Amino acid sequence: MPPADASCTLKPVARVRSPYREKFGVPRQSGLVEAACGWLEMLPPWDDPAAFEGIEGFDHLWVIFGFHACGGEWRLRVRPPRLGGNREVGVFASRSPFRPNNLGLSLLRFEGLERDAAGLRLRVSGLDLVDDTPVYDIKPYLPYADAVAGARGGFAAEPPAPRLKVRFAPAARRVLETLDAEAAAALERLAVQTLALDPRPAYRQGREDGRRYGMRLLDWDLRWEVHGDELVIEALVPAA
Amino acid sequence: MPPADASCTLKPVARVRSPYREKFGVPRQSGLVEAACGWLEMLPPWDDPAAFEGIEGFDHLWVIFGFHACGGEWRLRVRPPRLGGNREVGVFASRSPFRPNNLGLSLLRFEGLERDAAGLRLRVSGLDLVDDTPVYDIKPYLPYADAVAGARGGFAAEPPAPRLKVRFAPAARRVLETLDAEAAAALERLAVQTLALDPRPAYRQGREDGRRYGMRLLDWDLRWEVHGDELVIEALVPAA
Repeated sequence: MPPADASCTLKPVARVRSPYREKFGVPRQSGLVEAACGWLEMLPPWDDPAAFEGIEGFDHLWVIFGFHACGGEWRLRVRPPRLGGNREVGVFASRSPFRPNNLGLSLLRFEGLERDAAGLRLRVSGLDLVDDTPVYDIKPYLPYADAVAGARGGFAAEPPAPRLKVRFAPAARRVLETLDAEAAAALERLAVQTLALDPRPAYRQGREDGRRYGMRLLDWDLRWEVHGDELVIEALVPAA
Repeated sequence: MPPADASCTLKPVARVRSPYREKFGVPRQSGLVEAACGWLEMLPPWDDPAAFEGIEGFDHLWVIFGFHACGGEWRLRVRPPRLGGNREVGVFASRSPFRPNNLGLSLLRFEGLERDAAGLRLRVSGLDLVDDTPVYDIKPYLPYADAVAGARGGFAAEPPAPRLKVRFAPAARRVLETLDAEAAAALERLAVQTLALDPRPAYRQGREDGRRYGMRLLDWDLRWEVHGDELVIEALVPAA
């Protein structure tokens, strides 16, 4: 088969259940937000426990997925947020979603397998995926093959440091306190870890912009502003 | 878009030029055979240098490819060679090619980019891919996101140790010596590193089997036998 004609059609094996319900604010790499927990809901015929025997020996999984929110868009050059959004690199020197075949690769922490009448799903954390993302494959992380000590990481050699201090304004804090303790703690951790990374477009980062931003996390709409190096969550509203 | 219907069609961005011209003998993970050097030949429109700006800052690349030699075959349970070929694990607990969507993931060392009238290609090493493999994406390796220190590796926690001592019989050695020094050294390194891993089916490993095996490397057919812990290359013949 000449590979130039080697098109192939993928069918999803799973779909992602993520606290990120829209693209804005999703961490730009997996593992950055440990509190971003969700599920890979397996689709038939892959919802069979036989396909997962032995998976409990691994604690990280590769997920190959489709950037379904990108609508098939691609570019030869992209502007990574890491370079301030104003320097270009080639698409193959980046993990940009605007790439050939719109395929993504994430490394998630595997937290366990659950099975009940609703189906079979994998609990994962460190998500950088939007809710409903189609998953085309799941593979175990093999440290001896996948962990390269001392590899050079180009323009992204270091993880992005959390840059903002996140605080709930009193009104938002009062809403948080109406939730049961566990749900409140989980939502707070998720909001703090996600927003500390500063989801604003790169050209607005590091400046006082006076704008109010909105973001959805789980079933909550968050409204927030940035003042200096502090991000203040002004409002927490149940999503419509 | 409901992910259950989120089929997607991939077109290759590159094809692999590998010294492994057939499935038999291909290393079972990338990076095991450092001498396995080849190319990713970019296909239009991805043969544009603009798509690679900044890639020189990285020394490893992820390649998402199709197991094109597997003809769409998949299984829920597989028998990894690492478990002797007689114990089953779930397909998602393995890197087996017989998997949903037949997608593979390899981590290759990036040795440089070349461009001439014939096109644009990336020099890579540590190949575990058959010649002509279709490539659907290339991504830089990001150490901060991809290298997990101390991750558990299930049944494949350690790399497979080279298990056989490889030796050229005098007749094969004489053929090797007819080549120019550089080509001879490269072929010898490739043959020794590849065969030391023992490409025989798992159920034959560790036993005296009295069989003669054949394998193609580059444009050479190698014939070899195993005696105790020694693998002897008896013949080296130009491939037909």
